[in-house]
Amino acid sequence: MIYSQRFSAFRQKRNWEQFHKPKDLAISLSIEAGELLEIFQWKTDEEVVSLIASESKQRIQDEVADVAIVLLYLCHDLGIDLNSAVRSKLEKNETKYPVHKAYGNSKKYDEY
Amino acid sequence: MIYSQRFSAFRQKRNWEQFHKPKDLAISLSIEAGELLEIFQWKTDEEVVSLIASESKQRIQDEVADVAIVLLYLCHDLGIDLNSAVRSKLEKNETKYPVHKAYGNSKKYDEY
Amino acid sequence: MIYSQRFSAFRQKRNWEQFHKPKDLAISLSIEAGELLEIFQWKTDEEVVSLIASESKQRIQDEVADVAIVLLYLCHDLGIDLNSAVRSKLEKNETKYPVHKAYGNSKKYDEY
Amino acid sequence: MIYSQRFSAFRQKRNWEQFHKPKDLAISLSIEAGELLEIFQWKTDEEVVSLIASESKQRIQDEVADVAIVLLYLCHDLGIDLNSAVRSKLEKNETKYPVHKAYGNSKKYDEY
Repeated sequence: MIYSQRFSAFRQKRNWEQFHKPKDLAISLSIEAGELLEIFQWKTDEEVVSLIASESKQRIQDEVADVAIVLLYLCHDLGIDLNSAVRSKLEKNETKYPVHKAYGNSKKYDEY
Repeated sequence: MIYSQRFSAFRQKRNWEQFHKPKDLAISLSIEAGELLEIFQWKTDEEVVSLIASESKQRIQDEVADVAIVLLYLCHDLGIDLNSAVRSKLEKNETKYPVHKAYGNSKKYDEY
Repeated sequence: MIYSQRFSAFRQKRNWEQFHKPKDLAISLSIEAGELLEIFQWKTDEEVVSLIASESKQRIQDEVADVAIVLLYLCHDLGIDLNSAVRSKLEKNETKYPVHKAYGNSKKYDEY
Repeated sequence: MIYSQRFSAFRQKRNWEQFHKPKDLAISLSIEAGELLEIFQWKTDEEVVSLIASESKQRIQDEVADVAIVLLYLCHDLGIDLNSAVRSKLEKNETKYPVHKAYGNSKKYDEY
């Protein structure tokens, strides 16, 4: 998943760069995440399983892509190298959630 | 940005796979997006500029990474190839937002 | 649930009216809703039941109140009468979701 | 803003009580807040002003009402008295944000 020339061309051609302020991209990310979540709303675990096996899979894929697209614009504009950001955050999470405390436990680190 | 062996190891070691149901990952994505948004909350455009130039940049980077990490788990678990999902969604967006209608216009396609 | 003099005094004393632009209050509402959702994250139906019976109930209550408080500020500032807005939306929903189509069906009205 | 007999009747007639688990209502609240936020997305302060003076006001009102409706269902189902929850949270906020620290300052209490 990488930001390509196509991303820049897409918004440049539409003169949309004016809208893509970091705060608005962060808003957008939250809204897109909500649209993805909406697909799972009211569904039981069993229903999610059949959802994933149905034509809704395509809709999930599209919403997931929307989240990724906004994320890539935001990273590009803020000069964030997403690969290294992910790597460094994974490292932090490994420390924040030591195995002996986190094992089988869904609590947040500040509730240990 | 790719799902690596490290992702699987992280949750396996902590016995967290039981929590990572698709619906809960979608919830998580929404919450993480909210945490990123929180950094920009109440900020004017000027304040966002200095925010990005300050030590808050690291916090933004971490929250962005959290969103990406959840997204990668979700794609992995649902068998979604994020690269091709993004590519195919960009294509759809190019059609949904034709340049002559979308130019300088932030409306959603269904409001044209 | 009503907007009282106490609401105005709270933000006036703190000189916070400058931050309470409608867009920022809408952001805030979304973030507060995310914080409430976080309490339920990763929980099974059974765990939610014991959550509600535990001291987490107070935390739920506080997050619910935060959502309500932001909502009341927003309505106050936009001159929205929440009671009549709710009444009129309930009416719309009754029409949008006719009983014979909606019965036992969690689909959105535009998917009928 | 009060939960009335109409609320119970609405979902009972549609056999929707099965869907209204607390976790799903919390998801719903987050999605509805996102739909409200979407109206403000990409808008500058000036555009928000004219938005509020336009026919979009009705849309805002409807989305605000949707948030309130979900909130009322959630409170009803969890036995939360929203009025007293709001009152008690306002009190906590008054303590968490003492005037001399909070004055003209949008920081979160844990960043003081």
